[in-house]
Amino acid sequence: MGMKCIGIDVGGTSVKIGLFETTGELLDKWEVKTRKENGGANILPDVAASIRGKLQERGLELKKDIAGAGLGVPGPVLPDGSVEVCVNLGWRNINPQKELSELLDGIPVKSGNDANVAALGEMWQGGGKGCRDLVMITLGTGVGGGVIIDQKIIAGRHGLGGEIGHIHVRDEETEHCNCGGVGCLEQVSSATGIAREARRRMAATDKDSVLRKAGDRVTAKDVLDAAKEGDELALEVTETVGHYLGVALATASMIVDPEVFVIGGGVSRAGQFLLDVIRKYYEQFTPISKNKARIVLATLGNDAGIYGAARLIL
Amino acid sequence: MGMKCIGIDVGGTSVKIGLFETTGELLDKWEVKTRKENGGANILPDVAASIRGKLQERGLELKKDIAGAGLGVPGPVLPDGSVEVCVNLGWRNINPQKELSELLDGIPVKSGNDANVAALGEMWQGGGKGCRDLVMITLGTGVGGGVIIDQKIIAGRHGLGGEIGHIHVRDEETEHCNCGGVGCLEQVSSATGIAREARRRMAATDKDSVLRKAGDRVTAKDVLDAAKEGDELALEVTETVGHYLGVALATASMIVDPEVFVIGGGVSRAGQFLLDVIRKYYEQFTPISKNKARIVLATLGNDAGIYGAARLIL
Repeated sequence: MGMKCIGIDVGGTSVKIGLFETTGELLDKWEVKTRKENGGANILPDVAASIRGKLQERGLELKKDIAGAGLGVPGPVLPDGSVEVCVNLGWRNINPQKELSELLDGIPVKSGNDANVAALGEMWQGGGKGCRDLVMITLGTGVGGGVIIDQKIIAGRHGLGGEIGHIHVRDEETEHCNCGGVGCLEQVSSATGIAREARRRMAATDKDSVLRKAGDRVTAKDVLDAAKEGDELALEVTETVGHYLGVALATASMIVDPEVFVIGGGVSRAGQFLLDVIRKYYEQFTPISKNKARIVLATLGNDAGIYGAARLIL
Repeated sequence: MGMKCIGIDVGGTSVKIGLFETTGELLDKWEVKTRKENGGANILPDVAASIRGKLQERGLELKKDIAGAGLGVPGPVLPDGSVEVCVNLGWRNINPQKELSELLDGIPVKSGNDANVAALGEMWQGGGKGCRDLVMITLGTGVGGGVIIDQKIIAGRHGLGGEIGHIHVRDEETEHCNCGGVGCLEQVSSATGIAREARRRMAATDKDSVLRKAGDRVTAKDVLDAAKEGDELALEVTETVGHYLGVALATASMIVDPEVFVIGGGVSRAGQFLLDVIRKYYEQFTPISKNKARIVLATLGNDAGIYGAARLIL
């Protein structure tokens, strides 16, 4: 029986935990509720108790069978593992990897930002399996990202590494992004951004479209489904989204030039259809070289976080 | 007497060579002519002969006193050190690090793209001294760049790492860049690009300006000198240049988040005045965080290449 490792993905509602073989096989996964009261003081003790219970159930021992645990945190993590503020959890000035290690008999614990950790998971066992360098872009309610070079997360000196959603890509934008910027990638390519773009396009033209049935309640899924069916207005929105994603990927290629881009998040359920549009614009903005990164879909879905967290300690 | 190392910067006209202490002190530097005939077959033998002569002159021996040599090449270098095409030198399908090592009694030789190598030099002994992570942008006839993370060059899977000059930053651009793209950073912030921007601005307005004396022969230096003197049209051009450099730096921060940006090349002789304009726009496009990279001037000038090349083998 080989060594095991544990991946922990701390979210605002629940904490996902996975027990893995160090070879990458997921043996078990479960969740515990995230108790945010008292500055999130219960979160790590709850996680530790749950892990102890699971190991006992399986006849495993912490120091004998577990190589270590990794922790994905929904906020910036400094190079020493400390977290200054994590709004979603109520944490302030704690070092969760140090605390969790103490709660787990001193086994090694490493932490990272959850978006970066998800990228590491996709490198280990997901869409980027077999690659050492990748850039992941997660198109959800917002746009997250992670940069992996030589199998390591580029977290950055100030925790900004992989904040792909807040690259400025659109000069003509006038509204503000949540970050305070104007023209961020997130404003046009998140689920929220795609829906907004569709509402704008509907307001700006009289063109007929199946999207008009949903009106202001139109979703990113409505847009991408309609685009696949050939709806002209939905296709225009999709081209705009693909254009700015293509710019962002091209930019990332000119800076770190990864082997592969992995596209994840709810919006990526549109699949190869979406990748083809992104690829078209990525090619347009990288005429400098024929050889460049592939673009693939993420494959681990919501489990990318526990996979990446487990990989942190290997 | 400590070990020495050698840095070699191969250019289209001459090859610069430096002899260093492995602690970073430059002991001697000299140049040999770049003979490009016969597919550049003489370049490496010329370099090797020149190094042997210099060592003899100083009573040094290759295998006893020299830890190794580094080589900056004006083109893409693949991960194994091979060069498919180097137009400026006539090289095709050679592995210059392997060949040079054979010409120098088998001492270790490592190679890298010259812009990336210059960035490593600025990290070692230049504007980024003491930092482990930096992004360098060289504003010359074109715009070059280099990304250093954890003291290592990010060359990229396809040799595109650090090609900052070809990030798309300007949606409103209509002319093509040398790379085939439209709206590249190089088109607006290289010496050539700044002069072009000034010509455009002069043509678009009747505004009086000292730049009109030079007319179509206006240079980037004219623009920045006039801007420092308060010339309104020159200031407008400088703001445009700073705007797009600010976007590019902000983007690099969202991807790799370095400790410092090092600005070099002829245009950077405008000094702190230019940095202040870049900083203003860098701040505008990074509202996401108060903590972010510093922006400093390169300090090694044309010697950055030999410094970085020498650092390659340490």
